[in-house]
This record gives sequence, C-alpha cells and structure tokens, in this order.
Amino acid sequence: MENISKVWLGPLPADSPYVKPFRMYYVQNGKEKNWDLLKVHDSVAIILYNTSSKKLVLVRQFRPAVYHGIITSEQGNFDNVDLKAFPPSLGVTLELCAGIVDKSKSWQEIAREEVLEECGYDVALERIEEVMVYRSGVGSSGAKQAMYYCEVTEADRATVGGGVEDEIIDVVELPLDEARRMIQKGAHNNSPPSCLMGLMWFFANKAPANV
Amino acid sequence: MENISKVWLGPLPADSPYVKPFRMYYVQNGKEKNWDLLKVHDSVAIILYNTSSKKLVLVRQFRPAVYHGIITSEQGNFDNVDLKAFPPSLGVTLELCAGIVDKSKSWQEIAREEVLEECGYDVALERIEEVMVYRSGVGSSGAKQAMYYCEVTEADRATVGGGVEDEIIDVVELPLDEARRMIQKGAHNNSPPSCLMGLMWFFANKAPANV
Repeated sequence: MENISKVWLGPLPADSPYVKPFRMYYVQNGKEKNWDLLKVHDSVAIILYNTSSKKLVLVRQFRPAVYHGIITSEQGNFDNVDLKAFPPSLGVTLELCAGIVDKSKSWQEIAREEVLEECGYDVALERIEEVMVYRSGVGSSGAKQAMYYCEVTEADRATVGGGVEDEIIDVVELPLDEARRMIQKGAHNNSPPSCLMGLMWFFANKAPANV
Repeated sequence: MENISKVWLGPLPADSPYVKPFRMYYVQNGKEKNWDLLKVHDSVAIILYNTSSKKLVLVRQFRPAVYHGIITSEQGNFDNVDLKAFPPSLGVTLELCAGIVDKSKSWQEIAREEVLEECGYDVALERIEEVMVYRSGVGSSGAKQAMYYCEVTEADRATVGGGVEDEIIDVVELPLDEARRMIQKGAHNNSPPSCLMGLMWFFANKAPANV
C-alpha cells in the first residue's frame, strides 16, 4: 500500500467531480459577509463488529489529503517532497468502512454495498442499523454523513474485501483493547473523528463486557 | 443570528486564505493516480464543562458550508435560493468551542484564547488539558485537530463571549440530558462528529454520575 514512488501537485481541474469550491456570499444582520466552501459528496460510515473473532473491522488506506496536510504543515509547501524524509506511510489512515453517496440507492443499501466491497462481508439490508446522522466538515463542506452499525460473523464472509476498481484498501481486524487505546486521553490518531466517535459509541452501547 | 436576507454564490477566488484546492498526483504500485483535495487550516476544539451550572458550554452559529450542503442536496444547485422554503436556521450548528491554528502560538494557547473569545471564560493555560489528536476530513483536507478539555466555573467568566470581529456566535449552556440525547441512537444532529465525539468522551470520562 505504501509503495508510492512519486507525488506531485497540480491545479484543481474545473470539472472535478469530487471537489467543487465556491465562495458563498450572504447578508447577515444587514452586513455582507462571505465564506469559502466546497461541495463534497454526502457519505455513509459503518461500525462493523465481527462477533466470531470479537474484533472491530476497519479499513486502512493511503489518504492523499492527509499526506498533503502533513507535508504542507511540516515544510510549508508540497514542492519536491522527499519520500525518505516523509514516507507515504504517514498518510495511511485507519477508518471505519465508508463510502460516498453517489448512486440513486438508499443510504442503507450503499452502506451494505460498502461493507461487501471494502470488507468482504455480505449481509442482508435489515442487519445494517442506523446509529446517527450528522454534518462533517462544518467549516468547509458541511456534508451529511450517516453512521450505521452492523454485526458480522465468519459465515458472512464472501470475499477478502479491499475495494473495487482502483481502490487499494486493507481490511484490519482490530482487537478491542487496541481500539480502546485509540480513544484514550493522549492518543494521537491518523483517524477521522467519525471513526473515533464510532469506536466510542460501540464501547458505550455494544461492546461485550468481558472482552 | 438567522437574520439572513440574501445568499448567493461566486467562484472561489484564487487567493482565498481559507480554501486552497489542488489535484494531487501519485504513483502507487506503479500506477499513476490522482486525488482532489484542499488545504485548510489545522484547528483546536475544546470540550468546556461549567462545574457551577453542571452544563456543557457549546457554541451555536450559522455555517455557510452546512447551509450550502443542505440546499444543494435538496434542490441540486444553489440558484435563487428561496429563504422561506429553506430558512437559514437550517444552517445553524451546535459545536464545541473551536478555532483555526493561524497564529504563531502554541495550540494550547490558541485553545485558551478561543475559550475566552467565543465563550467568555478566562482560564489559565494549565487548566486546558489535551484529550487527543486526530485528522479531520481525511477524504478532502486531512487537517489536524487537537481536542482539549477544560472545566470552568462562574468565577472564570470575563465576558459574555460571542467571538471577535465579524463573528456572530451564541454561547449555549447545554444541560447534560440534552447532550446525552444528541449522542443517542437515531439522533439527527447539525453537529460535526468532533463535537459528538467530544460529548461521548465527556460522558465516558468526566461527567458527574449524579447529573
């Protein structure tokens, strides 16, 4: 996964299907203001718990935006990135199984498909239960994300997962004690708050008492 | 706050200090790939608990990105927005006290300043304890956010808060039972996952047992 041999930056094409930036203008209390923002896709995320192995099922992937964020915070720009000084593994994250809402299907059905495509478990729709809905990136994108919870067993395993088409995704079975460490005071995570929130929700509501 | 009389959209200026979009190219396993992303500021967020009132202190504000996200999901574009059909209150969020890291000060000091500017409590630096660090917007920005926890009392109140310069921010003292409802199964929040995660962390680690 971290076999990345070259990185460089170009301008955002005007026809990007993923990032559409704008400046929004508005008049609040009689005064004109503005805010720079972008439209990104709404998304689903799924807390997956394998009750056979008593492990959480997460995904690990190289995230260009995270790598870019780290490099530019460290060296002030993204020019001539030294892949030895900044190994691409810095941009690898651990996240909940997730996907964007870009199809004319129900959100729950999209969640079901992501569980199969990314993690390889084939589950019936009614086993995907909604946890909660919220807005991510309130400062920049304000996209909606719905979080789901699904318990799986070894019997549900249909493929090894790993994503579709160009996706390079590792499925990670995370022991509960490691997950607990991720949400402890002082933890430094390459994980988004939605993942950490999902783990906290799991421990507060679903985790077996004896693991 | 929701006294918003007009909204419209323009192109993102090339010199926006807040949103800098790019297309990143990289070679992974010998194959050229790309990802559209943007640079946004790193940030701090603070879980604030008033031990005098036994309430959490949050902020409420109109978020253009959230309003834009809702309108474009509903009507497919942001043209001729009907403010009666889509009242600007739809874009008002409830969040942790937070701020961007754009000054040459320590992150903890920036957190201290945000507590004062947004919420009006003047606390010593050592009372701001770090909770954890993570990456937000892993799909689009990958910015770093550090979360802090701080207990305040009525004696710390220096101003009414509300932000600086053009900011229009309401300070909200949230009873713990209302906060608990925000993180229950089925909750639909106009809040970011960082806020919901902060509330879950508070209930797991800091909340008094008898409130």
